[in-house]
Amino acid sequence: MEIIEHLKNHKSIRRFKSDPIEDTLLRDLIYCGQRASSSGNMQSWSVVISREHASREKLYELHSRQKMILQAPVVLTFCSDFYRIRRWLKIHQAKGSFDDFLGFLTGMADAVIAAQNVAVAAESRGLGICYMGTTLWASDKISEHLNLPENVVPVTSLVVGYPDEEIPEVRARLPMDAIIHEETYHPKTDQEITDLYREFEKQTWTRYSRIPGMQDKLNEAGITSVAHYYTSDMKYSKTLHQQVSEMFVELLRSKQFM
Amino acid sequence: MEIIEHLKNHKSIRRFKSDPIEDTLLRDLIYCGQRASSSGNMQSWSVVISREHASREKLYELHSRQKMILQAPVVLTFCSDFYRIRRWLKIHQAKGSFDDFLGFLTGMADAVIAAQNVAVAAESRGLGICYMGTTLWASDKISEHLNLPENVVPVTSLVVGYPDEEIPEVRARLPMDAIIHEETYHPKTDQEITDLYREFEKQTWTRYSRIPGMQDKLNEAGITSVAHYYTSDMKYSKTLHQQVSEMFVELLRSKQFM
Repeated sequence: MEIIEHLKNHKSIRRFKSDPIEDTLLRDLIYCGQRASSSGNMQSWSVVISREHASREKLYELHSRQKMILQAPVVLTFCSDFYRIRRWLKIHQAKGSFDDFLGFLTGMADAVIAAQNVAVAAESRGLGICYMGTTLWASDKISEHLNLPENVVPVTSLVVGYPDEEIPEVRARLPMDAIIHEETYHPKTDQEITDLYREFEKQTWTRYSRIPGMQDKLNEAGITSVAHYYTSDMKYSKTLHQQVSEMFVELLRSKQFM
Repeated sequence: MEIIEHLKNHKSIRRFKSDPIEDTLLRDLIYCGQRASSSGNMQSWSVVISREHASREKLYELHSRQKMILQAPVVLTFCSDFYRIRRWLKIHQAKGSFDDFLGFLTGMADAVIAAQNVAVAAESRGLGICYMGTTLWASDKISEHLNLPENVVPVTSLVVGYPDEEIPEVRARLPMDAIIHEETYHPKTDQEITDLYREFEKQTWTRYSRIPGMQDKLNEAGITSVAHYYTSDMKYSKTLHQQVSEMFVELLRSKQFM
């Protein structure tokens, strides 16, 4: 398939077969991540491969009990990593650095760029992937579980495996004009935002109505629009968002990135 | 070309022709970014397209005077963006949220995932790309230049254009065992780190020696190894790294992400 068509056809997979992924294939996918751009060629990231069932059970608990983590054979946790580089600098008696917020951000960009290459490569080989945004939400406990040393912080994860569902339709996206700004940022008017979100809201609400039990839960909670759902207690509540934000700053401090 | 082979063959391009990129092609590349995964399908990112010469001249100054910014027809600045989403929530009188550190990180992951899809798509169409790590270093001034509102912060940029150089060889990378950890993180011994970096150091030092004038500068500064170069005043000095870290925290505060 043409590469652009491949990218346009991405769909996250959320039900997996337990079939294992051959080790040579998995390493090949990660190698695609390694070949992606990296800031100053520092390769300031690392990946922890979780295959053992006991480990995935723990990750399942930490990632809000998303069943796909138990189904799929592999979870990849991508980390911003300056531990290795700082050790290397020390061996050479070079000046230390990177144990600061810019270090963390540099490693986070490297880690996410690599993760996306792994995702694209995996899909090209018939595998399905799903990003775990919950990695940020449970980064302190994931760090502990994976035994991460100072200057290593998890930033995203991929569940990888063979799909056990019909490949879903591509998910609704906003019109491109919501994302693109020419030359400088042009905030939209209320009317423009309403127009840009209309079709997205409609398609997303229809999708919700097809998820078994979802409509009842929305009714119980008195949620009547996609916007209300997003910041409700069912999705991303403000209180939790703030708690996680504080935890993350604390994690960066304890990992000597702040 | 097979997708995996395409990913493995990535090389950053640093000299560009001034040939413009057709608008339909550029939008197609950005659309590939839009189709990538996004946390909770919030699409919490945006991209500012800089084409005008005056704008690229300003970006050239802000990105440490890297000439490719003046040569290439397009610079794409990718931003973590919750401004649009918060406006949308407000229009619907939904609860506000995401104006916190977790919001910023969520948008940063979305923005970088999208950027990497744009990079992969661009290269598949014969274009060259180079990431600008300097985006983080000058994020305050870039924000000002691009007129970014609250809850919008630039996290990475791509220079995009047709290559005006022989496609370089793929750049040295560490052996995969430096990056991969099985089940839990296993810090390497000094000997293992020395072994893992040996070939990388050799290839990188050889590359430095081929850059006109570089060897003289290294000699003048008394730099005799790649490790010493990385934290020297020529590359990523600790003092600057700390200053930028402080600036970035301040930027997050002023953009209401902290």
